[in-house]
Amino acid sequence: MGSKYQKSVRVWLPLCAITLEVIFIVIFFFFTSYSASVDEQKKLLRDYRAFQDVFIMATFGFGFLNTSLRRHCWSSIAFNLFLLVLGVQLAALLDGFLTQLSLRKMVIDMSSIQRATMIATSVLISAGVVLGKVNLLQLVIMTLIEVTAFSATRLVSISYLDMNMHVSMMYMHMFAAYFGLTVVCCLRKPLPSASEDKDQTATSPSLFTMLGTLFLWIFWPSFNSALLELADERNMAVFNTYYALAVSTVTGILMSALAHPQGKINMTHIHKAVLAGGVAVGAPSYLIHAPWLAMVLGSVAGMISIGGFRYLQACLQRKVQLHDTYGVHYTFGLPGLLGGIVNIMLMALQAQGVDKSTLGYKVLIDLGALAFTIVMGVASGLLTGLLLNLNIWKSTHKIHYFDDQSFWKFPHLAVGY
Amino acid sequence: MGSKYQKSVRVWLPLCAITLEVIFIVIFFFFTSYSASVDEQKKLLRDYRAFQDVFIMATFGFGFLNTSLRRHCWSSIAFNLFLLVLGVQLAALLDGFLTQLSLRKMVIDMSSIQRATMIATSVLISAGVVLGKVNLLQLVIMTLIEVTAFSATRLVSISYLDMNMHVSMMYMHMFAAYFGLTVVCCLRKPLPSASEDKDQTATSPSLFTMLGTLFLWIFWPSFNSALLELADERNMAVFNTYYALAVSTVTGILMSALAHPQGKINMTHIHKAVLAGGVAVGAPSYLIHAPWLAMVLGSVAGMISIGGFRYLQACLQRKVQLHDTYGVHYTFGLPGLLGGIVNIMLMALQAQGVDKSTLGYKVLIDLGALAFTIVMGVASGLLTGLLLNLNIWKSTHKIHYFDDQSFWKFPHLAVGY
Amino acid sequence: MGSKYQKSVRVWLPLCAITLEVIFIVIFFFFTSYSASVDEQKKLLRDYRAFQDVFIMATFGFGFLNTSLRRHCWSSIAFNLFLLVLGVQLAALLDGFLTQLSLRKMVIDMSSIQRATMIATSVLISAGVVLGKVNLLQLVIMTLIEVTAFSATRLVSISYLDMNMHVSMMYMHMFAAYFGLTVVCCLRKPLPSASEDKDQTATSPSLFTMLGTLFLWIFWPSFNSALLELADERNMAVFNTYYALAVSTVTGILMSALAHPQGKINMTHIHKAVLAGGVAVGAPSYLIHAPWLAMVLGSVAGMISIGGFRYLQACLQRKVQLHDTYGVHYTFGLPGLLGGIVNIMLMALQAQGVDKSTLGYKVLIDLGALAFTIVMGVASGLLTGLLLNLNIWKSTHKIHYFDDQSFWKFPHLAVGY
Repeated sequence: MGSKYQKSVRVWLPLCAITLEVIFIVIFFFFTSYSASVDEQKKLLRDYRAFQDVFIMATFGFGFLNTSLRRHCWSSIAFNLFLLVLGVQLAALLDGFLTQLSLRKMVIDMSSIQRATMIATSVLISAGVVLGKVNLLQLVIMTLIEVTAFSATRLVSISYLDMNMHVSMMYMHMFAAYFGLTVVCCLRKPLPSASEDKDQTATSPSLFTMLGTLFLWIFWPSFNSALLELADERNMAVFNTYYALAVSTVTGILMSALAHPQGKINMTHIHKAVLAGGVAVGAPSYLIHAPWLAMVLGSVAGMISIGGFRYLQACLQRKVQLHDTYGVHYTFGLPGLLGGIVNIMLMALQAQGVDKSTLGYKVLIDLGALAFTIVMGVASGLLTGLLLNLNIWKSTHKIHYFDDQSFWKFPHLAVGY
Repeated sequence: MGSKYQKSVRVWLPLCAITLEVIFIVIFFFFTSYSASVDEQKKLLRDYRAFQDVFIMATFGFGFLNTSLRRHCWSSIAFNLFLLVLGVQLAALLDGFLTQLSLRKMVIDMSSIQRATMIATSVLISAGVVLGKVNLLQLVIMTLIEVTAFSATRLVSISYLDMNMHVSMMYMHMFAAYFGLTVVCCLRKPLPSASEDKDQTATSPSLFTMLGTLFLWIFWPSFNSALLELADERNMAVFNTYYALAVSTVTGILMSALAHPQGKINMTHIHKAVLAGGVAVGAPSYLIHAPWLAMVLGSVAGMISIGGFRYLQACLQRKVQLHDTYGVHYTFGLPGLLGGIVNIMLMALQAQGVDKSTLGYKVLIDLGALAFTIVMGVASGLLTGLLLNLNIWKSTHKIHYFDDQSFWKFPHLAVGY
Repeated sequence: MGSKYQKSVRVWLPLCAITLEVIFIVIFFFFTSYSASVDEQKKLLRDYRAFQDVFIMATFGFGFLNTSLRRHCWSSIAFNLFLLVLGVQLAALLDGFLTQLSLRKMVIDMSSIQRATMIATSVLISAGVVLGKVNLLQLVIMTLIEVTAFSATRLVSISYLDMNMHVSMMYMHMFAAYFGLTVVCCLRKPLPSASEDKDQTATSPSLFTMLGTLFLWIFWPSFNSALLELADERNMAVFNTYYALAVSTVTGILMSALAHPQGKINMTHIHKAVLAGGVAVGAPSYLIHAPWLAMVLGSVAGMISIGGFRYLQACLQRKVQLHDTYGVHYTFGLPGLLGGIVNIMLMALQAQGVDKSTLGYKVLIDLGALAFTIVMGVASGLLTGLLLNLNIWKSTHKIHYFDDQSFWKFPHLAVGY
């Protein structure tokens, strides 16, 4: 690895991030102010707690979730925090500008920061796919594009496709998964077969991953109910998420035992299945009026997640050389898609006093919005992938696809102690 | 170990759990609905937080508490989550049916899930005694029996023995400890003396156990005040629990230094003593009107816990071959008993305008309820122990009592990565 | 190490702590009662949450923050909890007596325990400087002196120097840092040059330190807003703290990459910089009316922290043999000083309808209060340092300055398992 390369990244990363930070501060200086309304302040307590829960998920949950690769555990947590705070600042600004579609002064309140945090979470999900294959500078570029693309997608969905706030946010899992998968597809190959094995065997047992999983588990009901306005919808979203998570945990453990030739339970499976229930129940959580439906949904999500990870993963990796480090596709992608479809079905079933043609039209629009989200994810992922391949941050060496070993050979990528 | 045995468990565990899950979903389908009352929903915020605290204790606290045996740490956390979600579902159903004593539709609200979680916590305490000696299928059977038995005990105590909700739940620690100890007594012996040593020396220093302990520490005040209705009782329960925990921590560290010939402080002691204070203050927490009494109670609990673990443990292990892996008897059993007795004394002392004979009768009833809880714990533990010894899940080999080594020899028991 | 020394400490520590605990219980018996007012109880929910956040910071945050030295990780967490519970009890009593300046019965409520916890946190910060250089008995002495000195400082500042509750508490970081540094200066030298190296190299990568850092990160906004009464001030304090933390994280990571010759990011730097933002924004958090100012302040704090740690640390260690184990000076001392100065500037700028001479007088008083806090920290630190050097807990051996190795050679200091 030439020293020229290292220097360029070494200079670029701080330069780029400092410039970003200065731009953010200037924009905040000119365009933001704190809310001064009394009503807003009364809501502080409730919102502060909900916000804290979401923030804990983002920092602890996603931070520790990706620590299972021995070589990346430090990078995972530090990069996670770095990307999160950058993403939140950008999302807060974009959310303000895009919502009011002008450059007037915007008001920063608890709910806007909460929305920004949820949007920035999409970056953390995508990072799970590419971690160990890109450097921090590339991750910063990815953050900028993904947050912008997802904010735009949400805006279009809400304004023109009649989607509500909650559902448009819940499509995030799906968006982030397909974004990340597209990026990783675009990154230059071939993946050396040796590093593939290394990637698998480096998976040392880590209680920290379980810690991250549990943090996500515990606070998922807060996440799924955060954007709902009506008390009874919040209520139902919380209950449904708990039931779905509980059943997807049971299903995941069983599926894992069944899938293993000797009946061993695989911890990686547990991490995936446990979370799949929460993802799947996200979008329709406010429409499910009885626990059994949430339980069935959780159970199906658990099965899809383990089944996909066990059988589809190897197939995709062989066929299209798609290397999904943490199985994001099966934890977030497919369960998110399932949730979106169930949501549309439930909306159609629960629509009352609507004639058939109107209903059919509405279902079409909803399906269109779902497809639009995925298309936007893939398109912006493609853009990001090409950009990450094109540019100055590339090495002239042959191994463009960094395995987890190379993370330590190339100091500029590593997080030392 | 014959392959026939392995296969039978391998098939039985998923089969049994899937059947259970299907039965749960069907019962939930026919017999439950979400609350639709507006008052209920207003209470959501308060109850949601209290519920979250209890749930964090159950998942993080008990999950990480039992990770100190190196061989079991994975199993401990994964099994803990599995048993918890099964237990909560069963307890929610039983609680509904037993409370209304009929098969009418029951309402699922936050407080019913919270009660169910607290009941299911009893399984996690008992699991601390038997962990490493039984397989997951046996733990599932244990969960079913223990949750049923404890729900029934609570119902009888509340309906016929005039106990209040709060105290009947706080007797859980005691119930769970004696249940677990009876089960472990019934499991076939002999314990090979070699494995006994191994059990001790495998205790590698683990910060994770401390993490679990701290999670329990922090949220214990929420646990002890969760079922109290009046604001001032909640208030006092919170304060008293903090003071008791603080003093039991100090006492525990001192006792540990005194008990060691070279004045070393033993981390295992700290885990025990720290929690003993919270257990002891549980039942009487709403009756203690000044901090000093909670402090004295915490101090006594800390002493009982360390003293018992240091001196009684070895004695019991030698005499009745009672092998209490995590010292559950001294963390939960004895301090729980102390709390029960203090509760009865305080109720008698604070009773006003009651003549002596009525008071004596009341104290007798209370003592009877305390004894009844222990007897039910032992009886249902006996039933469970016999059942676990009797059945098809037994191996035909001579070592029926699995030491922590065998956990890895028998793949069907293990949690791999 | 002579056995006489060991015995004396072995006897003294439990004796001293038991005496303390008995004294505390007796004082609590005579002088405290729980609040019986109804208004107070209504505030329980809000205060309980804010209190929990602060308590989680103290136990998890500071407990795990100092685990990075391999030899101390056990001691760090156990001692942290021990010092905290002792400190809280003392601070609660002192706070009551000093506030009412009499020996009447005082009322224990949530806000008094919260204040006591915040005061006791100062001990945990100072412990970060001396950890590994003193034994537990010496830490107990330090706790008693520091809590008393800081309570007195706060009382004088509030009563005579016209400081408000919030600011006087936020000066804690500064007080604790200079207290700890003075103590460590007084501890007998010379520091063997070998142990100095050991201290550095023993810094094994530990995810637990990151866990502690994240706990502090997450709950810092609660800490900075805990003592503010008005809803809009709380609101602003929460927002400003988030923005300052976010920007100090970004700045810290960049500075770390720039400071390293090969562009590596140093995790120790991240821990420091991440927290520096929260410390710096503490005092002025309620006066900052726009996010950009908090962002600039966080950015400067991050730079000071990394710059100081990287360049000033080595210089101080060589010149005055000041050995600051965890870089407390750069995480808490300097950023705290920055926050204090910014607070005075903002108060002066935002003062309205005040003529110039009055304003000048006010600024002088404020600067005096700031200086007084530092002087009190240094003075009480000097007293503590001399006391710790003087006494019976000293060994007659030549190595008075325990390196982290000796922690395990001298059993009375160690936490075993």
